[in-house]
Amino acid sequence: MDRGVTVWFTGLPSSGKTTIAHRVEAALKERGHKVEVFDGDVIRKQLCSDLGFSKEDRDTNIKRIAFVCKLMTRNAVVAIAAAISPYRETRDYARKEVGKDFIEVYVKCPLEVCTKRDVKGLYKKALNGEIKGFTGVDDPYEEPLHPELILHTDKETVEESTQRVVQELEKRGYIQAPRPMAKQSRQ
Amino acid sequence: MDRGVTVWFTGLPSSGKTTIAHRVEAALKERGHKVEVFDGDVIRKQLCSDLGFSKEDRDTNIKRIAFVCKLMTRNAVVAIAAAISPYRETRDYARKEVGKDFIEVYVKCPLEVCTKRDVKGLYKKALNGEIKGFTGVDDPYEEPLHPELILHTDKETVEESTQRVVQELEKRGYIQAPRPMAKQSRQ
Repeated sequence: MDRGVTVWFTGLPSSGKTTIAHRVEAALKERGHKVEVFDGDVIRKQLCSDLGFSKEDRDTNIKRIAFVCKLMTRNAVVAIAAAISPYRETRDYARKEVGKDFIEVYVKCPLEVCTKRDVKGLYKKALNGEIKGFTGVDDPYEEPLHPELILHTDKETVEESTQRVVQELEKRGYIQAPRPMAKQSRQ
Repeated sequence: MDRGVTVWFTGLPSSGKTTIAHRVEAALKERGHKVEVFDGDVIRKQLCSDLGFSKEDRDTNIKRIAFVCKLMTRNAVVAIAAAISPYRETRDYARKEVGKDFIEVYVKCPLEVCTKRDVKGLYKKALNGEIKGFTGVDDPYEEPLHPELILHTDKETVEESTQRVVQELEKRGYIQAPRPMAKQSRQ
């Protein structure tokens, strides 16, 4: 019987949340686990078409993701949230909503590096004043105080970060480590 | 391995959707199945706090329920939606969104009976003009043309209606019929 869990990625825009989320998804699916990724932007379209980027609207967005993660988790699915989720209080709400099977992963990357990556070209717009309330530019990002895992995406490769998440899930018993191959077990 | 499915209850306010949904939930849980009920009113609080009762807002509400049902269904959960879902087009959207594992259950009950039951006291308010756009009073309910199942809650008991839904799920192979007891199998 699979155990459900929520893996909650938080971090600045362009820190690598979505990329790693989908790599973890692929790795777990390959092992036969049920996985769903909830990307902040996708969820906005599906569940939050009405919401903007004020603190209140951001909070509502995160609460809806948390609700869906809770549903998945209690039904034995690995739910992976990839959302900036800049406010500590709201992340704590998500943790409380989901319950004990919750792993907060801080996708840590210096602002300069994220600004340089600028995957969606939004830092540029924010720095030019075309977008208001952009996290990291003119809206705050509150770092996690006690995340279960910190990924340093300016130093690790995507593959390394992915592996660290998978190993964390193994360590906590949500997924099984792959059996060693014959050769290895003979050592 | 469980098969997921969405059981979509539609019908007038006070027709019995929520009551039967929770009875079916209990019956399936007793047999060890994973089940989630999505009650229109509850979902409004969790995912649609921003929405009113205009056609557009009703549609958005239903689309969000459909999204969540799709997630559950593809992860081997029985998702039960209990929402008025008055518009045929939106129900068809839900069916398309979820895919082949979708069972539309028309909870049919004459308007006079529903008005008399008036579980939440809303028909009274609508008839007094205190609420606008109330389904069955001054907002349309479009009957399903080809539902997989019709429950006649003015003639059947709650228990009978519940059993008919459970049997429909057995018939379609989503759940297994309980094994006959020793006495019966010896016949």
